[in-house]
Amino acid sequence: MSEVKRVYRFGGVNADGDGSMRNLLGGKGANLAEMCKLGIPVPAGFTITTDTCNEYYDLGCKFPEGLKEEVNAALAATEAIMGRKFGDPKNPLLVSCRSGARSSMPGMMETVLNIGLCSETIPGLIEATKNPRFVYDAYRRLIMMYSDVVMEKAEGIEPEDGNGIRQQLDRMLAKVKAEKGYASDTDLTEEDLKALCEDFKIRVKQELGKPFPDNAMDQLWGGIAAVFKSWNGKRAVSYRKIEGIPDTWGTAVSVQSMVFGNMGENSATGVAFSRNPATGENKFYGEWLINAQGEDVVAGIRTPNPLNDATKSEHNQHLLSLEKAMPDVYEQLNTIQHNLEQHFHDMQDLEFTIQDGKLWMLQCRVGKRTGLAALNMAMDMLAEGLIDEKTAVMRVAPKQLDEILHPILDATQEKKFTPVAHGLPAGPGGSVGRIVFTPEAAVEAAKRKEKVILVREETNPEDVEGMRAADGLLTARGGMTSHAALVARGWGKCCIVGCDAVHINMLTRTMTIGDKAYKEGDVFSLNGIRGLVYDEAVPTINASENKSFIDYMKIVDKYRVLGVRTNADNPDDAQTALNFGAEGIGLFRIEHMFYGKNSEEPLAKLRKMILSNTPAERKMALAELEPYVTASVRATMKVMDGKPVTFRLLDPPLHEFVPQSAEKRQELANALNISLEDVAKRGEALHEVNPMMGHRGVRLGISYPEISEMQFRAIFTATAQLINEGYHPQPEIMIPVTISYKELNDQKAICERAYDQVYKQTGVEIKYLFGTMIEIPRAAIMADRMARTAQFFSFGTNDLTQMTFGFSRDDVGGFMQDYIDKKIIAADPFQSIDPMSVGKLVEMGVKGGRTTKPDLKCGVCGEHGGDPASVELFHKFGMNYVSCSPFRVPIARLAAAQAAIKSYE
Amino acid sequence: MSEVKRVYRFGGVNADGDGSMRNLLGGKGANLAEMCKLGIPVPAGFTITTDTCNEYYDLGCKFPEGLKEEVNAALAATEAIMGRKFGDPKNPLLVSCRSGARSSMPGMMETVLNIGLCSETIPGLIEATKNPRFVYDAYRRLIMMYSDVVMEKAEGIEPEDGNGIRQQLDRMLAKVKAEKGYASDTDLTEEDLKALCEDFKIRVKQELGKPFPDNAMDQLWGGIAAVFKSWNGKRAVSYRKIEGIPDTWGTAVSVQSMVFGNMGENSATGVAFSRNPATGENKFYGEWLINAQGEDVVAGIRTPNPLNDATKSEHNQHLLSLEKAMPDVYEQLNTIQHNLEQHFHDMQDLEFTIQDGKLWMLQCRVGKRTGLAALNMAMDMLAEGLIDEKTAVMRVAPKQLDEILHPILDATQEKKFTPVAHGLPAGPGGSVGRIVFTPEAAVEAAKRKEKVILVREETNPEDVEGMRAADGLLTARGGMTSHAALVARGWGKCCIVGCDAVHINMLTRTMTIGDKAYKEGDVFSLNGIRGLVYDEAVPTINASENKSFIDYMKIVDKYRVLGVRTNADNPDDAQTALNFGAEGIGLFRIEHMFYGKNSEEPLAKLRKMILSNTPAERKMALAELEPYVTASVRATMKVMDGKPVTFRLLDPPLHEFVPQSAEKRQELANALNISLEDVAKRGEALHEVNPMMGHRGVRLGISYPEISEMQFRAIFTATAQLINEGYHPQPEIMIPVTISYKELNDQKAICERAYDQVYKQTGVEIKYLFGTMIEIPRAAIMADRMARTAQFFSFGTNDLTQMTFGFSRDDVGGFMQDYIDKKIIAADPFQSIDPMSVGKLVEMGVKGGRTTKPDLKCGVCGEHGGDPASVELFHKFGMNYVSCSPFRVPIARLAAAQAAIKSYE
Repeated sequence: MSEVKRVYRFGGVNADGDGSMRNLLGGKGANLAEMCKLGIPVPAGFTITTDTCNEYYDLGCKFPEGLKEEVNAALAATEAIMGRKFGDPKNPLLVSCRSGARSSMPGMMETVLNIGLCSETIPGLIEATKNPRFVYDAYRRLIMMYSDVVMEKAEGIEPEDGNGIRQQLDRMLAKVKAEKGYASDTDLTEEDLKALCEDFKIRVKQELGKPFPDNAMDQLWGGIAAVFKSWNGKRAVSYRKIEGIPDTWGTAVSVQSMVFGNMGENSATGVAFSRNPATGENKFYGEWLINAQGEDVVAGIRTPNPLNDATKSEHNQHLLSLEKAMPDVYEQLNTIQHNLEQHFHDMQDLEFTIQDGKLWMLQCRVGKRTGLAALNMAMDMLAEGLIDEKTAVMRVAPKQLDEILHPILDATQEKKFTPVAHGLPAGPGGSVGRIVFTPEAAVEAAKRKEKVILVREETNPEDVEGMRAADGLLTARGGMTSHAALVARGWGKCCIVGCDAVHINMLTRTMTIGDKAYKEGDVFSLNGIRGLVYDEAVPTINASENKSFIDYMKIVDKYRVLGVRTNADNPDDAQTALNFGAEGIGLFRIEHMFYGKNSEEPLAKLRKMILSNTPAERKMALAELEPYVTASVRATMKVMDGKPVTFRLLDPPLHEFVPQSAEKRQELANALNISLEDVAKRGEALHEVNPMMGHRGVRLGISYPEISEMQFRAIFTATAQLINEGYHPQPEIMIPVTISYKELNDQKAICERAYDQVYKQTGVEIKYLFGTMIEIPRAAIMADRMARTAQFFSFGTNDLTQMTFGFSRDDVGGFMQDYIDKKIIAADPFQSIDPMSVGKLVEMGVKGGRTTKPDLKCGVCGEHGGDPASVELFHKFGMNYVSCSPFRVPIARLAAAQAAIKSYE
Repeated sequence: MSEVKRVYRFGGVNADGDGSMRNLLGGKGANLAEMCKLGIPVPAGFTITTDTCNEYYDLGCKFPEGLKEEVNAALAATEAIMGRKFGDPKNPLLVSCRSGARSSMPGMMETVLNIGLCSETIPGLIEATKNPRFVYDAYRRLIMMYSDVVMEKAEGIEPEDGNGIRQQLDRMLAKVKAEKGYASDTDLTEEDLKALCEDFKIRVKQELGKPFPDNAMDQLWGGIAAVFKSWNGKRAVSYRKIEGIPDTWGTAVSVQSMVFGNMGENSATGVAFSRNPATGENKFYGEWLINAQGEDVVAGIRTPNPLNDATKSEHNQHLLSLEKAMPDVYEQLNTIQHNLEQHFHDMQDLEFTIQDGKLWMLQCRVGKRTGLAALNMAMDMLAEGLIDEKTAVMRVAPKQLDEILHPILDATQEKKFTPVAHGLPAGPGGSVGRIVFTPEAAVEAAKRKEKVILVREETNPEDVEGMRAADGLLTARGGMTSHAALVARGWGKCCIVGCDAVHINMLTRTMTIGDKAYKEGDVFSLNGIRGLVYDEAVPTINASENKSFIDYMKIVDKYRVLGVRTNADNPDDAQTALNFGAEGIGLFRIEHMFYGKNSEEPLAKLRKMILSNTPAERKMALAELEPYVTASVRATMKVMDGKPVTFRLLDPPLHEFVPQSAEKRQELANALNISLEDVAKRGEALHEVNPMMGHRGVRLGISYPEISEMQFRAIFTATAQLINEGYHPQPEIMIPVTISYKELNDQKAICERAYDQVYKQTGVEIKYLFGTMIEIPRAAIMADRMARTAQFFSFGTNDLTQMTFGFSRDDVGGFMQDYIDKKIIAADPFQSIDPMSVGKLVEMGVKGGRTTKPDLKCGVCGEHGGDPASVELFHKFGMNYVSCSPFRVPIARLAAAQAAIKSYE
């Protein structure tokens, strides 16, 4: 035996492990152990650790020495508790092999049930259960699952599309049903099933080249290996990529005694949540099926029954609740769920099976929930005293806030429309978009920035990328715990499932609802809160005025240290950000006034300035431009009254503004009184090979001091005007693309000259800060010197990432996907800051700057300011604030509060 | 009085300072003090420190408090030694104000002579000297110099071109001479001069708006201020920029009693070198003029006499030597020069004046010399025992080696040509180029990479940029110590001066030599060693086979620690580098086979590969390309037998190779069997916004593993072939543009696969290294991880500089000059590594890599590998080698040896 403990037992009222050991035992294994210790009825078994999974891979997919002995010992203990023996001809024990990672990955890895059924044990089980039909049904399920998971997938066999072993066996089953005229699987007789099992085994041998193993132990080890291998299955890898789960975590394998929900009308199986995972409502909520195995509920093949009467929906109110059908069992289950929630202080997601009237708990875990539910539960549990404020703050993932902030269908407008179908409200919010029928089409549409609703019969793990890309999801089948519902809720995506009025024809790419036909591209609306489907575009409204949200954010702000500002360049965005709690503007890009609406006139002036050939021409053009800049600056500062506004001087290479159209060029030629050819020539002269590292930012101000001067003057003039009107503007002036404090000295001299000019004209004294972006590696490395002149730093992590990686943001499309696919980089460094390189430079920058000025104000104004992981890093670095787009302000506030709470720990 | 000592006295046989204090007293002041202490006759005076110059600027061009008192005291001491009194009507002392920086800046700053002459003192001086003509001559010189330097230049007055006060006075002088029919200035009588002085003073008042100061003290302070101000004069700033002298050094002012070489036939003045500064020959060498002031020698107005008979040239053999004219004085001077050289252990550059038969030393300093002279002197002094080996190694500036390595006229061919003129051989080597007559034309030509010879009457400091740009210099006037000669020698530029056969007509841009006329653009050749001028192109040869050079480099290599490799991509360059002592190839750029001669065929194959649309197409094109790569790799490794050759995989973005011409595009369309339109479309698809940070380097290999694989296979195949032929190839494979060791792992797997293929085919075992460029900041920051896989690092400091500064090398042209002019950066960071940022990243890279692999081989293959200052830094970082272009190999060897010697200290 090795010295490492690889196998942890659970069962009876005892266990080797406990709920704290999820890293080693996976969430499932740890919680099974914890439930045992709490005296909850759990079928006995044991868990093989995640470390063993890594060992298995390190050994080239071989089991480590000593594992066999440990498993045998644990199996013996399991047998003792359950009073049956694995592989025993008389009284055989069956087991399941289930995966369990540190973090739940629903449906992404493999499970094999009914392991241990073979020629030797079948008669014994029939004898023990007196139910031969059940035994053969279990056997055919084993063959179908095992041949698919263990013999095909785990061996890396890639069958032709639609011709996997599972699909072949499914077709054989369907054929028998058709021949016999059966409506349901339950119509199959003992004889039907027995014959099918024999036919299945023949087909398996033909197709996969080896016999279905007729030995319990062989089945068990095959199952364990298959679970380990499913960690690197295509779906699991794709899911980890999206969720940012490290490849090194590995999965545990829980081998657990089987109990059966399909042993007759006194058996059942179900899933339950201690509160509603879609809304957060504090009601015990779930679904169950009589005489079924768990996979039947999750697969969404039958529409399941409601757990209790209080949570019946329009959709399932005709079905019998467990509360009514088995009141004692329901009561026991209700007590268990309550105790588990009190024990874990969080909403529980439960799986249970009732075998012949006895309740067994197969799993408990912290339930996934929508952002809305997370928020409501946090506020409720806080009110209930179940959790404290810090825990409440930690309970909502910052990214989930996104859902709450996003639109819902406008209830007052929605009344005027008639839904064409109803389904289960599986994911929150509202969605309006064109329907598509394939994940590929959804991905394509997302690339074109088009909103689509993905409509599917039911979804499966292969669809996740398309589901991710879609704005809304609609499935014809499945319940609230079906794949589509689980995944959509995880992402907070609007989703309606089990909408059986929908009939899809994949060949013609059309669907019908009732007698209406629709084609791909038609516009639909979904109400994810009520499960209503419309074949028109229903107006949406912003959900940000939610009261719980506002109360929650107040608590959040009590724990937050890091300031949160916004990136905004116009009064509208500034107002939106203020509504979301922005404490100032961290990035006002002066050039943004030349894009978008109302930019025609100032852009024409800017172009004139850019193509000026002499300082005199340029000064004239600048004089014409200045009033526009003053007005733009002034309007936003007015909205932000009393809060700091950081103005970044003109940043992009001038070539960007040279007009491309013949008409605009002619206009410009007229304005400058030069020939079209000269316009082309002057424009061409501005062309650069690598404009990102060219003549831009402060470099423009060094070469053309008059350009900086105009901007300084505009800012000071606007400020003076506002002060005269009784406002309290707080301008902060920021010089971009710097590499040396000497650039700052140069620009500061110009700034002071402009200040004096405006002061002479207006007599208004202005307080302002003069600072710099830190966005070039040299500036970060030499931050101590930059801080000689700069009164604040704002880290431009977008450009800093470009230079640190040598990745042109405009060009990474050519290779980024290859890099992510080949696992060379874990994530797009433009989304989440790379702590090892860019993060290190930022840290050097903050530390360096503060060696010169200990109180130097430091902020971040790259897109990373709205990324929770990055915000956590910035908090650690002791930044003063982050700045992000208006809609990300609450996300940044929450991320900042969570970072502060974590760092107190 | 302040506590800081600002004034240091010298005179008699004592001094406050000494030769070690050049930082504070300037070179001139320090050596005047040292000469006094050695008992050498020096006119007494005092030196105001360089710190005072900085104080002066810090105070906004005002003298610090307390300076006046110190100067007065020092002046009193000077008067006591010299036995005359400044401003005294009876027995007046005259003084000069001279500049003196830490490092010699010949002719770049101002001097004012004869200070102290005014209405009050003139009669006294006439009485004392009994020489009224001399006195008025001195007075007119004072007025001319003072009005120009102190009253015009130092006041920042910018007169119209050709109408400065000095030029106006010059014209007045010329007019008098013409009216009186005088040939020379010496023909002017006392009365002429007296009248001229009065007219001069009237003109000065008219032109400059204030009277010429008629007070000795006012003159003195004006002179001191003017010298300080000349530190920031245009010429001085331009010179410092070229020579890399910091602006913060400042200049000292030496105020020294005047002695006069123009007091009659028993007076003289001259400059001398203790050895020949052009060739290094160990002979006392110099020039003198009877009855003249020092400025007459330096200005090159009269052709000066030789100092002794042994060093007479063809050109001045008819003139009387000092040795013959004043044998006693010559003997005294000869003893002094010998003693000074022994004292300072280096060649001395001396200025002396003989006043009425008495020798005075005005200056001694280490003499500037050509590279050839530096080398020869170092070897001679080593042989003489005057210096040791380390000193000899330190005596040649690495950049000077450039001159020695550069071409001279081929002596065997030169015989067949007839020189059209003779001049003084003032700068070494040979030069062949088109003649131009203005510095501007020379600068323009240099931009076009055209070689030109700048032909001038005489040069002045305004010409320096044009002189720098020219390949050779030819002046009609001036001696070996004229401005042109001094500057050319400093730079090791081929130069002939005093070629009085040359007559230039600036209006027509032509020149005549005898009866031949030439126009701008005609080709000339110069023999800078013999002073011969040809009006044809004479063939040149390489001077690298010089024996002293080879012996010298042997000594250099004894002290060198850092290895020196070369950047070479073909057998010719490799051979050149081997001849220059390269120890391997540090950078073989595979893509270079697609540029230049013989590249047609492989380029066509490469283009085919680039525009392939499917892996199959691409593999076919790669298969066609592989033999060319194998052949290219093989040919260079063969030349480098037994030495390492580092191959860098294909680096540039593929778009660079897409053909632009219609013809080439059609060819490619045919080869790929696609339409012209498709060629355009596929080419366009490769276009990038910022290709420098785009899909290039290893990123190509990640996206298209087959491209890397082909290159690996080509390298291994070539190596195996060479081993079979008995060679000893040492390939090192280098992956460019990396940011992560995971990229290296990815490529290494491909490399090993290629190795196995080649091994199976050939059965030859190959030793090779697998390493990476460190050229992206992230790679430097995460070097510890990069070294997990890399067996060596080669720092690509070009790209690292681009990313660290955010400077696109292709685009810095738009602003680099503004940055240098505004002193934001001290120098082009692509020429000399920026130690504060790029240097820091390189250091992090070396340290980081060696935490993982303590013996990690580290090299540099950017252009900085040939820059002496950068080499010194790389030595400090503990690099194993630098790699540079073949012609820079000896420079790098010397720089490396000097770095090692410095670090021993």
